[in-house]
Amino acid sequence: MTGICQEVPSGMAVKNRQLVLAARPVGMADDSCFRLEQAEVPAIGDGEALVRVVYLSIDPTIRGWMNEADTYFPAIRLGEVIRGGGIGEVVESRNPGYTPGDLVFGLTGWQEYAVADGGARAMTVLPPGIPLLDALSVYGVTGMTAYFGVLDVGRPQEGQTVVVSGAAGATGSVAGQIAKINGCRVVGIAGTDEKCAWVTNKLGFDACINYRTDDVAARLRATCPDGVDVFFDNVGGEILQAVLERINLGARVVLCGAISMYNSPEPPPGPSNYVQLVIKRARMEGFLVLDYVSRFPEAQLQMASWVVDGKIQHAEDVIAGLENAPGALNRLFTGANTGKVIVQVSEEP
Amino acid sequence: MTGICQEVPSGMAVKNRQLVLAARPVGMADDSCFRLEQAEVPAIGDGEALVRVVYLSIDPTIRGWMNEADTYFPAIRLGEVIRGGGIGEVVESRNPGYTPGDLVFGLTGWQEYAVADGGARAMTVLPPGIPLLDALSVYGVTGMTAYFGVLDVGRPQEGQTVVVSGAAGATGSVAGQIAKINGCRVVGIAGTDEKCAWVTNKLGFDACINYRTDDVAARLRATCPDGVDVFFDNVGGEILQAVLERINLGARVVLCGAISMYNSPEPPPGPSNYVQLVIKRARMEGFLVLDYVSRFPEAQLQMASWVVDGKIQHAEDVIAGLENAPGALNRLFTGANTGKVIVQVSEEP
Repeated sequence: MTGICQEVPSGMAVKNRQLVLAARPVGMADDSCFRLEQAEVPAIGDGEALVRVVYLSIDPTIRGWMNEADTYFPAIRLGEVIRGGGIGEVVESRNPGYTPGDLVFGLTGWQEYAVADGGARAMTVLPPGIPLLDALSVYGVTGMTAYFGVLDVGRPQEGQTVVVSGAAGATGSVAGQIAKINGCRVVGIAGTDEKCAWVTNKLGFDACINYRTDDVAARLRATCPDGVDVFFDNVGGEILQAVLERINLGARVVLCGAISMYNSPEPPPGPSNYVQLVIKRARMEGFLVLDYVSRFPEAQLQMASWVVDGKIQHAEDVIAGLENAPGALNRLFTGANTGKVIVQVSEEP
Repeated sequence: MTGICQEVPSGMAVKNRQLVLAARPVGMADDSCFRLEQAEVPAIGDGEALVRVVYLSIDPTIRGWMNEADTYFPAIRLGEVIRGGGIGEVVESRNPGYTPGDLVFGLTGWQEYAVADGGARAMTVLPPGIPLLDALSVYGVTGMTAYFGVLDVGRPQEGQTVVVSGAAGATGSVAGQIAKINGCRVVGIAGTDEKCAWVTNKLGFDACINYRTDDVAARLRATCPDGVDVFFDNVGGEILQAVLERINLGARVVLCGAISMYNSPEPPPGPSNYVQLVIKRARMEGFLVLDYVSRFPEAQLQMASWVVDGKIQHAEDVIAGLENAPGALNRLFTGANTGKVIVQVSEEP
């Protein structure tokens, strides 16, 4: 009707391509779980704005929302557009908070056009000048998860030892660097030698363990001679078990997720040595970055200064095409990615 | 030599009967793990005092010390006297801090005579007038564990729901009552209908679940309609798993022990649903009451006022005879006891 029409040859109806949940996955989500549909581009009402989706943030938690059980969000319903964060451009607005041309971040979903409003579907207008990929990684939910997970939940002291699983992932890579900035010894755990090399050579971790080829327990002993004070974990399973064996008195295990479990139809056993928490008067604590939204500005400012100073390096793994979002999601679970997985849905403005 | 001689027929040598670790247990500790020995009554040196042991505090943690692996204390060595807390009477002293006739609490070990000093083997002189059984239960490590575990680690707010496992045990029974005093809804979990009746009728818990006969998940739903804010757990295993399913946002799981695991040669799996901690931004935290020793006086004073006011009821399960200490220990794991298990080694003065 307005803004968007100028991008299409006249006479051709613009459609809103969407990926909806076709079936609940058992194990890794395969193609049969998704259906590509062509909906009408939504007509916006008073208080709403139309957003052309540019990038999708691909996060492990999306796989969790595809299960039948509700989590911290309701489960995605069958036939519903896959829920997910993204960045888009406002192309039409009937809300004074959004101006055409604004770049916004919010729960766009896996589709080409989304609707923002001032309520439940509110989106955040990005300040000008931020690279959009950075906005989804270091300044986005990923970077914020690393920031608050390390500083607010883990609280490492200078000179302590911090272990980070998923160390070459979007969150882990930033989490480890924040711990380094705070004067800690930082040991990563990742799945390939290339990732380990990136983590140590480029990001400055003190050591990195390849969990697929190394003897993790032996390498933890070797690389953490003084034990582990903070474990930033987004993997779970055997790695969590191995690190619990090495925790120090008063250690903090920051549970950011359990990526090793998300694709298990039956959840695997928890750590059989969790009584280590008693012996070591330690704590295992889950957190959700959404609880910290009001403090994002302070964290984003701090992060920006670290990025400018070269203290935080980051990487993005950009996959082109909405239709490739399911495969992009699986990259998180096969460990194919280094850094933040992002799907490009349309051209940057 | 001095004090003790007056109790024995002259000419008969007094011996110090001791239970030593004969073999490390696999599963429940049976008789073959202990050996009754007759040692000499120790001759004390400068700075030491001789203590005639009256009562032994029988605690689940002793079973843990019998394993090969060190815990928060070194493992008991083969041939070493079984470590354990107890109360005794000073019968001879070459330390100005101890006067013959003093009643003292400390790590007496499973023997008839122990040595106290002013250093690593220091014992606490009990104020006069405290019933000795109370000193080992509500005012002892057990009561202190309940006090600090609930108030310092669990921190329940008025109106919240607190679940306590091992509810008829020495610690759980007191923990639940402290939560009641703080205005909480309190639900116990215990192993017999008699225990459940005691917990609800005598101790004032709002409900009690018999984990051997009830459908625990269904009963948790029924008795905790608003979910669980604090879980005081000293059992672990399936009960921990079941309660994790019901935790509220920001819940605290206080790990006081894992009695269900202490006798397992191979530790059973941990809770496979521990990701609930992420979904619910909850925390699972271990603690050891020994870290709170400096605050025992404040807690003991508070506990005394509650006992006097009838707000804290307690029970002791007293077994006569040092030689019966191994069987008394097993009562904790078979669930035979209601309240604090204590072994009487000699007569109260």
